Amino acid sequence: MIITLTTDFGLTDPFVGIMKGVILGIAPGARLVDLTHDVPSYDVSEAAFIVERAYRYFPSGTIHVVVVDPGVGSPRRPIAAAVNEHVFVAPDNGVLSWVFHSAAEASGVSAYHITNTGLFKPVVSNTFHGRDIFAPVAAHLACGLRLESVGPRIDDCRKEALPQLRPSGKGGFIATVLRVDKFGNVITNILPEDLGGQFSIRVAGTEVRRLLPSYAEAKPGEVFAIEGSTGYIELSVNEGSAAERSGLGRRAEIEVETGGANH
Amino acid sequence: MIITLTTDFGLTDPFVGIMKGVILGIAPGARLVDLTHDVPSYDVSEAAFIVERAYRYFPSGTIHVVVVDPGVGSPRRPIAAAVNEHVFVAPDNGVLSWVFHSAAEASGVSAYHITNTGLFKPVVSNTFHGRDIFAPVAAHLACGLRLESVGPRIDDCRKEALPQLRPSGKGGFIATVLRVDKFGNVITNILPEDLGGQFSIRVAGTEVRRLLPSYAEAKPGEVFAIEGSTGYIELSVNEGSAAERSGLGRRAEIEVETGGANH
Amino acid sequence: MIITLTTDFGLTDPFVGIMKGVILGIAPGARLVDLTHDVPSYDVSEAAFIVERAYRYFPSGTIHVVVVDPGVGSPRRPIAAAVNEHVFVAPDNGVLSWVFHSAAEASGVSAYHITNTGLFKPVVSNTFHGRDIFAPVAAHLACGLRLESVGPRIDDCRKEALPQLRPSGKGGFIATVLRVDKFGNVITNILPEDLGGQFSIRVAGTEVRRLLPSYAEAKPGEVFAIEGSTGYIELSVNEGSAAERSGLGRRAEIEVETGGANH
Repeated sequence: MIITLTTDFGLTDPFVGIMKGVILGIAPGARLVDLTHDVPSYDVSEAAFIVERAYRYFPSGTIHVVVVDPGVGSPRRPIAAAVNEHVFVAPDNGVLSWVFHSAAEASGVSAYHITNTGLFKPVVSNTFHGRDIFAPVAAHLACGLRLESVGPRIDDCRKEALPQLRPSGKGGFIATVLRVDKFGNVITNILPEDLGGQFSIRVAGTEVRRLLPSYAEAKPGEVFAIEGSTGYIELSVNEGSAAERSGLGRRAEIEVETGGANH
Repeated sequence: MIITLTTDFGLTDPFVGIMKGVILGIAPGARLVDLTHDVPSYDVSEAAFIVERAYRYFPSGTIHVVVVDPGVGSPRRPIAAAVNEHVFVAPDNGVLSWVFHSAAEASGVSAYHITNTGLFKPVVSNTFHGRDIFAPVAAHLACGLRLESVGPRIDDCRKEALPQLRPSGKGGFIATVLRVDKFGNVITNILPEDLGGQFSIRVAGTEVRRLLPSYAEAKPGEVFAIEGSTGYIELSVNEGSAAERSGLGRRAEIEVETGGANH
Repeated sequence: MIITLTTDFGLTDPFVGIMKGVILGIAPGARLVDLTHDVPSYDVSEAAFIVERAYRYFPSGTIHVVVVDPGVGSPRRPIAAAVNEHVFVAPDNGVLSWVFHSAAEASGVSAYHITNTGLFKPVVSNTFHGRDIFAPVAAHLACGLRLESVGPRIDDCRKEALPQLRPSGKGGFIATVLRVDKFGNVITNILPEDLGGQFSIRVAGTEVRRLLPSYAEAKPGEVFAIEGSTGYIELSVNEGSAAERSGLGRRAEIEVETGGANH
């Protein structure tokens, strides 16, 4: 059974290693995979996007533990949820918002409030539920525990609205930067079909008008649009950083003109 | 069999991957878990603290390889030691000091000088004993080799004194910062019972007087004390960095007034 | 079956985790080991050196996936190659140059152009062949697929010349810095036998004349030469950074005087 881990713990402290020790003590055969531990501290919405884009590449039945948990020790609930044949274990703070939206319909989510303290570490701290609650619960699930056994079913999990395109008033729309990746690609919330045949995006005093099929077709230094590996449109520079060149960062808004807009 | 790895090698070079290759060549079934590889270069005492706080969360029988080894190639001894049903493989340079202190009594430690060169890589470098000695020895132990087979028993392993609280002369005590974690939490060597009912810690021109049960109960920006996941008192700021706000770093001293000291 | 991964993807994005999900979906028993994911972005030659120095420490039959792939989506070929009883899966962009040179003779390499699209993800992006081509092909090979099944044999894989020593005109030679490691050791392309009995390397206004057997024998702050764990001569400072002290970085040239040159 595969268990993935996503946190904002970084790799300098032994927090992630400790969670793995707890898991392997309960589920010695579990396969552990790190998605990332470099989520910016406390950044629930960043983690929500990352996990949703990644989980679909794991086999059905994978358990995904997501611990970005600024409210640890407060009354926010720990939850476990089945979505599209994957299982998620996380705090109920919106970190599964993107995953919940990815379920084809509301009935595609079965969520449970984790209340079965018999599954926890014998002493539960107020500062590290990744170790004391989420890791052991995930390990028990990996051992075959049924999801219903973690606690009562709930249907009011926290689900934040995802950033939507909105009309610009000029016949186009305003998009949002979801994330900048390691290469400086600027990942937007625009889908390829949103761009239509012609489009123009004003970025740092220049116009992006080209949707290229691959990085290699760009001119040197050109900022262009491309369908990224997330499925969303990304702004990119071949062997360079579009984020640096455009000054665009996460949550930045981008104005897109479409159709016959280039008069 | 689980083998954990703790080093100051970082993850940019392939040093850690190479150690894993050596281990898996000898012990194909070993489960490998990274505690951290971001120990500051050559910082034996930092690694000593990290390993001791983490190892207890792994199942009995786990083998912990700790390679922070500024004396590699010098006559410092490689050692293997059983402590509290865990096994440690490391240079004898003090990096197991915290682990040795965690043994209930001196008789709780069985240490051996690794001299059995038949366990090593055929050619041993003077610069990478992690690869040539520690990894293969750990792998052989994971395969069932008895600890006695690595070399002669010794009882004079290097054991540094741990930082102690000391009286301040004002009825309180002076504590020491053991480490700052990724979130900026300032981990001290104060145990919860040391603080008593009332206390005051002067930090960057303000007084910390509150021991809170969880981060969420803090006021915005407040520096407060909390029992951290290590079991020690930490100074924290909710969704902020106590290290930044207080200017406290590792090895800094903190003056604590206790009891009726707030006259 | 062991699969190693080397990329320039970093660990902040979930790219590496996604590749692992794809692999484990096809080859649930694969053992995954990271060599490094911190290759500088697009730096094919850096990855080429790292992989070659590391792969020999893994058992025969290990599959090494190397994805530093600035030409992703362009016509550059994906390849799989058997070298010295190891298997490599990578883009044909020179990233296996060092590995190919390590084969005792040209006949020691069996390379194949990966064209069997039945092995790929059903939809192949133009931006993430690590996920869509290299991971699934490696996973199928780990499951026992014969190398010949990935596509036609080829014998014209891209192979860059490795940096060579060249005569300096003063009876010595000019060497090149291959890499600086995490500790600031300056790894050169000089082999121990190249230095001869006496040598002198001018570095930042000082002369390096000592080849030491271990770091511990250096004087404080001294820049010295040592046979590093890669087998090449490195310039080092005991518990300090030779790179910082010397100002030498990757690709820098170093003039070495040898023999009776110290007149």
